[in-house]
Amino acid sequence: MRWTKTFIPTLREDPAEAETASHRLMLRAGLLRKLASGTYTYLPLGWRALHKAIRIVREEMDRAGALEILMPILQPVELWEASGRAAAFGDLMCRVVDRTGRTNVLGPTHEEVVTDLVHQNITSHRQLPVTFYQIGVKFRDEIRPRFGVIRSREFIMKDAYSFDADPEGLHRSYQAMYDAYVRIFSRAGLRPVIVEADTGLIGGDVSHEFMVPTPTGEDLIAACAGCGYAANREKLACPPPAFEPEAPRPLREVATPGASTIEQVSGFLKVPPARMIKTLVYTADGAPAVILVRGDHEANPAKLARVLRAACVELASEETIRQVTGGPLGFSGPAGLKGVRVVADHSVAGPSGAIPNAVTGANKADTHLVDVNAGRDWTPTETADLRLAVAGDPCPRCGAPIAFTRGVEIGHVFKLGTKYSEKLGAVFQDAEGRLLPAVMGCYGIGVNRIVAAALEASHDADGIRWPLAIAPYEVLLVSVNMKDERVRAESERLYQELTAAGLEVLWDDRDLAPGVKFKDADLVGIPLRLTLGGKGLEKGTVDLKLRTRKEQRPVPRADVAAAVAAARQEYPGTLDAAP
Amino acid sequence: MRWTKTFIPTLREDPAEAETASHRLMLRAGLLRKLASGTYTYLPLGWRALHKAIRIVREEMDRAGALEILMPILQPVELWEASGRAAAFGDLMCRVVDRTGRTNVLGPTHEEVVTDLVHQNITSHRQLPVTFYQIGVKFRDEIRPRFGVIRSREFIMKDAYSFDADPEGLHRSYQAMYDAYVRIFSRAGLRPVIVEADTGLIGGDVSHEFMVPTPTGEDLIAACAGCGYAANREKLACPPPAFEPEAPRPLREVATPGASTIEQVSGFLKVPPARMIKTLVYTADGAPAVILVRGDHEANPAKLARVLRAACVELASEETIRQVTGGPLGFSGPAGLKGVRVVADHSVAGPSGAIPNAVTGANKADTHLVDVNAGRDWTPTETADLRLAVAGDPCPRCGAPIAFTRGVEIGHVFKLGTKYSEKLGAVFQDAEGRLLPAVMGCYGIGVNRIVAAALEASHDADGIRWPLAIAPYEVLLVSVNMKDERVRAESERLYQELTAAGLEVLWDDRDLAPGVKFKDADLVGIPLRLTLGGKGLEKGTVDLKLRTRKEQRPVPRADVAAAVAAARQEYPGTLDAAP
Repeated sequence: MRWTKTFIPTLREDPAEAETASHRLMLRAGLLRKLASGTYTYLPLGWRALHKAIRIVREEMDRAGALEILMPILQPVELWEASGRAAAFGDLMCRVVDRTGRTNVLGPTHEEVVTDLVHQNITSHRQLPVTFYQIGVKFRDEIRPRFGVIRSREFIMKDAYSFDADPEGLHRSYQAMYDAYVRIFSRAGLRPVIVEADTGLIGGDVSHEFMVPTPTGEDLIAACAGCGYAANREKLACPPPAFEPEAPRPLREVATPGASTIEQVSGFLKVPPARMIKTLVYTADGAPAVILVRGDHEANPAKLARVLRAACVELASEETIRQVTGGPLGFSGPAGLKGVRVVADHSVAGPSGAIPNAVTGANKADTHLVDVNAGRDWTPTETADLRLAVAGDPCPRCGAPIAFTRGVEIGHVFKLGTKYSEKLGAVFQDAEGRLLPAVMGCYGIGVNRIVAAALEASHDADGIRWPLAIAPYEVLLVSVNMKDERVRAESERLYQELTAAGLEVLWDDRDLAPGVKFKDADLVGIPLRLTLGGKGLEKGTVDLKLRTRKEQRPVPRADVAAAVAAARQEYPGTLDAAP
Repeated sequence: MRWTKTFIPTLREDPAEAETASHRLMLRAGLLRKLASGTYTYLPLGWRALHKAIRIVREEMDRAGALEILMPILQPVELWEASGRAAAFGDLMCRVVDRTGRTNVLGPTHEEVVTDLVHQNITSHRQLPVTFYQIGVKFRDEIRPRFGVIRSREFIMKDAYSFDADPEGLHRSYQAMYDAYVRIFSRAGLRPVIVEADTGLIGGDVSHEFMVPTPTGEDLIAACAGCGYAANREKLACPPPAFEPEAPRPLREVATPGASTIEQVSGFLKVPPARMIKTLVYTADGAPAVILVRGDHEANPAKLARVLRAACVELASEETIRQVTGGPLGFSGPAGLKGVRVVADHSVAGPSGAIPNAVTGANKADTHLVDVNAGRDWTPTETADLRLAVAGDPCPRCGAPIAFTRGVEIGHVFKLGTKYSEKLGAVFQDAEGRLLPAVMGCYGIGVNRIVAAALEASHDADGIRWPLAIAPYEVLLVSVNMKDERVRAESERLYQELTAAGLEVLWDDRDLAPGVKFKDADLVGIPLRLTLGGKGLEKGTVDLKLRTRKEQRPVPRADVAAAVAAARQEYPGTLDAAP
């Protein structure tokens, strides 16, 4: 492709809207343009990279035996009501009321539709196992779209769904997808960390996320240097702590005028936050529940949803707080609460004891209780692991301290079990004639994120360093002076020669100063750069430079194709497509 | 692919919901399943065919120099308000109100978005010409989704948009797309008729549709056997007729109790419909207009929109009819109307005269006027070509009688001019520094319809006859008795051999009776069928049958690959992908 015949609107300045390296680079290198909040147009270079990522995903899904299908984006909301997820997704789902008055969901994922497909078309164990996949557009009405295509309202996802006769079958299907994911990301030049993850809105028992470490990632990866265990922070189990025994002191009520936050009360009473009980009122599918965590901890929404067995867990309104506690926001405490579920995190109270002589709200304006003791002054309905882990927490496997790094999720695999097949009637007859629900797994890849994560992981101050397999083009041919007839003619010959050899060549045939062209070359980041012109032309050489290296080297004109082929082999981002 | 490892749920019975051959075949052969009204899931075989059609479209677009991009589905409604099309599309567009309260349109087409992209990124004539295209999902909330994927609410479209500096450039870009369309459809095994078409909701001056003739098509193709001219019925110009001169008789009012339709009044008064003036009240962008057509003619909505210069032309409510005419529905006539635009079709009144001594409504219940004459009893505000052509109408080019056939539209190309670029600010600076609006064209292909139209055009009583280039697989290998170890082993060898030779083979490895397998083979319609087993195995032959022929012929085992390669060359549906 000639540069002058395609459309690469590179930018000289960093766009103000870009918060991350990948977003900035995608805009500056002319891969992407924003249409509206969370929606983007892929321009020719961006689309080529995305399309290559799609091709890798497709090849590996096919190799793993998954069957490609294409399901509608518009989904009847009734299917989501049948699965119980319409409420759980809430405003995250885009809804369309059609001219007949029916509500359709713009699929944020396709468990319901694919399970209904199996319900309608699979009746016998002889039709199992089967894994369907599709590559298509998904929609989520994000509260805060950000980071370009990483958190957008409209994105391209590969979603796969496996149906097996039994849990052993699911295990095999899950492993096949897991292995395919490892191959896909490796081919795209990525080195993700694979972590245990929460199953969230999707559900099921077991799940793994594929995370690419990046400083601006939205997820926190918890990793143990001791045993190698890794988990998403929201999944990481927090073992009950040891409590120092202490004689209980008499309960006191103290005035804390204007002090309502942990920080304010801690400063006012000179009590460390770890001695305080943070009392939070939630609603779980509409019913109120009081959650207690230590003053220096945060509640973990994923754990709350699991412990409270609720699809929709939200912080309660101030009105509900008053109804539940009798007091205002900022002064809640567990003492004296009646008729409400009180769930304490293990760091507040649990199998190994409780915070002795703690401080908490008195359910009265500008008032706290001091020397509060569980059992005497309040009693939990239940205790559980409810908090977000913090750096230094012990590894749940080996006890060594956990460290966090940031990452972006590019893939997620789930063992769903029979959650959807039971609700949507995806049953089959086994060899003995019994009707059983299919055992399901589901498997997602954010295809846009493959591209974005590759840029996060592979760039320098001058621009992108594409992994070879998803680079928009493999070779950039830069003609140094297009006004020079010999340069033009020789460039044309070389362009034709390399293209005929099956290489994907972008030829910068613009009549611009070399400095501008080299700057764009670094920004756009095509792996192999050939420079033709000047002294090289006199000597019969062309300069070959890898985007990953500083130096370039002259290659005799006759050897250029061979040199490019050799450089292509050693360049990061494997090309292996063979079975 | 082994039949037992993929998912081909063929049906024995014709599904009741299917009205057309392609819809019936897509369901029966297990290509497609309905999710809800106008939305379908493509199953593995259907997806493979669709994907091949997509690949052909992509290759030819690339060859024509168009640049692939990917634009969002969610589009801000403000762009549609700027172009003036929000009202024109009306309920045909799906709308999503997002969590911020903003309205988004689910793109039914992308003129607004792509023009805005050019507005944002193209400033100079040096960046022109450029043609962008994308292949993606479009949405239309059809009043009556039908015919399976032919008129669905969600469909896959290739849409392209060209931007040129002047009309000559547009002409070249238009021609390049036109030629690419001819190649695409030819490669997919289709022989469309290319007709002049109305530009409808898209706009512009010139357009051509690519129509595949089929008995159940929704469009009527008007074709002249005399000069070869072809047009969509709604586009076909109707020249003014000659009127027999006749002395005007005095106007009379007659009672027509209960007779309000043309048929009833014609019978009651013994007057042929061609002597009657059908008086229709419309609203054009809200303003009433009275339209007069001959009793045996129908008004043409496309011509009405053009003549009335309105985005939205609808039949008026009964209330509006009373306001405009003073009389009830069914008894309207042009005599005595005041303060309203009265537009007569040329067959009622026009440059060549008017219907003499006509019959029309009296704007009074159960009453008509007889011996009405234009000029004396009523006067049109204007006259125009407003009617739908009928069979036998003269060709506007040569005057020979026009005949109609039904067809399905698979592609449509438009010369848009500057309609969108002016409204959305897609201007560029020419060599002299003047700011000019880009001259645009747009070009659509219904990719689903390529598949559906291929089935409409190519099937028999037993099932599908795929054109080779979009067949889900090229070769079907049928093993006659999978219980026979020799059949199994030899089938496996042949399957591996053909697959290794680069052929796309579906191996029917099911342990079923040969009759069932042959029936499915005809239904699924893979072009080349190899049958292995029985006496052939003894003799060392395999039977080769083309889906388009009745007879099969034995081929020595050693020659099978060569025989398949040769048959593939002669099979309909060309494979040419070379530039």
